[in-house]
Amino acid sequence: MNFIKLKYKDILIDTLIALLIGIIVGALDALFGRVLLAITEFRYQNMIRLLPFLPVAGVFIVLMYRKLNEESMKGMSLIFQTGHGEREVIPKMMVPLLIITTWITHLFGGSAGREGVAVQLGAVAAHNIGKAFRRPDNSRILLITGMAAGFGGLFQTPLAATLFALEVLVAGVIRHEALLPALTAAFVASRTSHLLGLEKFSVNVTDALTWNIQTVWKIVLISFCFGIVGGLFAFTLKKTKLMLGKLIINPVVRIAIMGVILAILMLLLHMGRYTGLGTNLIDSSFSNGSIYSYDWILKFVFTILTLAAGFQGGEVTPLFAIGAALGVLLAIMTGLPVMLVAALGYAAVFGSATNTLLAPMLMGAEIFGPENILYFAIVCSIAYVFNGNQSIYGGQVQFRYFDK
Amino acid sequence: MNFIKLKYKDILIDTLIALLIGIIVGALDALFGRVLLAITEFRYQNMIRLLPFLPVAGVFIVLMYRKLNEESMKGMSLIFQTGHGEREVIPKMMVPLLIITTWITHLFGGSAGREGVAVQLGAVAAHNIGKAFRRPDNSRILLITGMAAGFGGLFQTPLAATLFALEVLVAGVIRHEALLPALTAAFVASRTSHLLGLEKFSVNVTDALTWNIQTVWKIVLISFCFGIVGGLFAFTLKKTKLMLGKLIINPVVRIAIMGVILAILMLLLHMGRYTGLGTNLIDSSFSNGSIYSYDWILKFVFTILTLAAGFQGGEVTPLFAIGAALGVLLAIMTGLPVMLVAALGYAAVFGSATNTLLAPMLMGAEIFGPENILYFAIVCSIAYVFNGNQSIYGGQVQFRYFDK
Repeated sequence: MNFIKLKYKDILIDTLIALLIGIIVGALDALFGRVLLAITEFRYQNMIRLLPFLPVAGVFIVLMYRKLNEESMKGMSLIFQTGHGEREVIPKMMVPLLIITTWITHLFGGSAGREGVAVQLGAVAAHNIGKAFRRPDNSRILLITGMAAGFGGLFQTPLAATLFALEVLVAGVIRHEALLPALTAAFVASRTSHLLGLEKFSVNVTDALTWNIQTVWKIVLISFCFGIVGGLFAFTLKKTKLMLGKLIINPVVRIAIMGVILAILMLLLHMGRYTGLGTNLIDSSFSNGSIYSYDWILKFVFTILTLAAGFQGGEVTPLFAIGAALGVLLAIMTGLPVMLVAALGYAAVFGSATNTLLAPMLMGAEIFGPENILYFAIVCSIAYVFNGNQSIYGGQVQFRYFDK
Repeated sequence: MNFIKLKYKDILIDTLIALLIGIIVGALDALFGRVLLAITEFRYQNMIRLLPFLPVAGVFIVLMYRKLNEESMKGMSLIFQTGHGEREVIPKMMVPLLIITTWITHLFGGSAGREGVAVQLGAVAAHNIGKAFRRPDNSRILLITGMAAGFGGLFQTPLAATLFALEVLVAGVIRHEALLPALTAAFVASRTSHLLGLEKFSVNVTDALTWNIQTVWKIVLISFCFGIVGGLFAFTLKKTKLMLGKLIINPVVRIAIMGVILAILMLLLHMGRYTGLGTNLIDSSFSNGSIYSYDWILKFVFTILTLAAGFQGGEVTPLFAIGAALGVLLAIMTGLPVMLVAALGYAAVFGSATNTLLAPMLMGAEIFGPENILYFAIVCSIAYVFNGNQSIYGGQVQFRYFDK
């Protein structure tokens, strides 16, 4: 019968496998995330003793990759290639390497994120679980499922995770068959990592706007800024990686020199304020702490330099920090409520830099309370349009259905 | 500079035009919608005097189209063809014809919706405004903008309207360049029609679920039912139209005979309970009124027969009613909270029948309170997967990026 023409059997099998993926990836996320938070805590208490070793840590990271599996350094690009059917095998060594090098990066004060690890470990786990179950040709659906699990387990925002995984491979296309497995895996991973003690960051934002022409203009303006900053981050990261690669050909020398520069600058500029995830900036943004007007710029620059140098991690949490700190600044400049605009920046800069629209909207709802979904929808939409169609993921396909 | 490579100038111009579209379409929506509600009220008070004239009204509708512009009868198909670049001109006569024939359908008790009018008047208005401004090649973006304005002005759910217009042309693809104009037009239309006295239907659902394995199963089960019913509606409507067209070739005879059958059955079955939009069923569902277990089936059947016979209107409000009444039934069967499940059915059956995912999620948030977005996201996702990929819009393109 034509009515039931889709392969529902496949969707159901994938959804059952997704339960397993969710549990495994959620547990791995919890392990990775909890150690990372402990490392972060330890670094703040020993900043002056750890930061000087950043260049040494960098050299160690590059040598480790060279020794064990150099291809793994491509990171997200390997995942995207697999997602687009351009490669069949993801090296298993990638996951432990990435976890350890990310921990090292954070221990010695690199400015980086963590979602790179989570998304990649999710993708690799799902890829291999799919193989074990001999899923025919379905590796791409399970890849999306794994990415959703990884992201969902780390941030405990299952809806945002699902849409992130669905949106990010191909901008502007939602893949129907992957929806249910991805959603299932994201929820299970989120629940699992929470039960294993990884905490969820959330803030209840209760600010409300009174709508008038002035408010509309201000919202458009701040959205525009978030979009530009997110797009600029993706653009600058790509260009800096290229330039630095040409400037200093040898990766060991590159990471050593950049490590020295980063360590000195980071110590000079507020004693390590811009190291690590940037959760300190996020906490300050939402607790009336002190946020400097240049916080977002410095976090922006340090994150790009850290990642371009060859350190490991991800981009998303620094993007949250950049967005929140920029939000505080814009709120003060426009007279809009600080908490709300910081929350909007948190979501919108992330969306703009990853070229995703629905993931940041739902991220906003899941972290700052669903009653704000309207604000997030408006601001993320405008920001998405003005991000220059940039993405931190070079492997993302830009899809245009109506192109002439 | 590559960074600003998109045609932002075009997007900005379209967004400015969208303001105008929003005002015009919102005003037309208010006019159409308020008269329709007055007609509905009048019909309830004079049911027994009006329903017998349904066949006569039907004949009048067919003759009017034949006399004035027969092509307009294709309705949404013309809009979809224009959206896919297959035709350049939409007949202007379409809008007044559709408005009047929809009013007539509702006055004499046909079971039909109203969004068909709103979406089509929006599309035609935007198409012609675009032409007046000599927008080059951009008719499709403005078409989406117009559809968003039409839907948004009628239901005053601007986010759902935006995503509906973006999703519905091509299932699974979000068109980047149309996002901002569509969002603008939907908000302006929504505000305009509200200021002009068209009321928004909304209910504050405060039920919450306690999550455990049993709840998960129940939610999956009800979502599955909503998906199947939505898909079945689209499938049955298409088949019934085809069958009825073959069975009674002459459209005048067809609508006359069907009009007699409908009028008799509608009077016999609870004296006109299943006439019109179905807002009576919706109101009962959310106010502890009496809902019969077969309400959703009869509304389903009568709507399909009304539309297949050749009466005019739309499908969406009856779909809301079918979903809400089915939700009440399923809530009682599963022991889940009645208001919440009715709300979930309201959104999910609409999404499943139109093959849209994000529009019903946001519809749920905009009508029943954003704090329920999580529930809507889960239920609409599952329903979307199980709708058999059916859509009431034959012109919708089924897009699959990863097809082998």
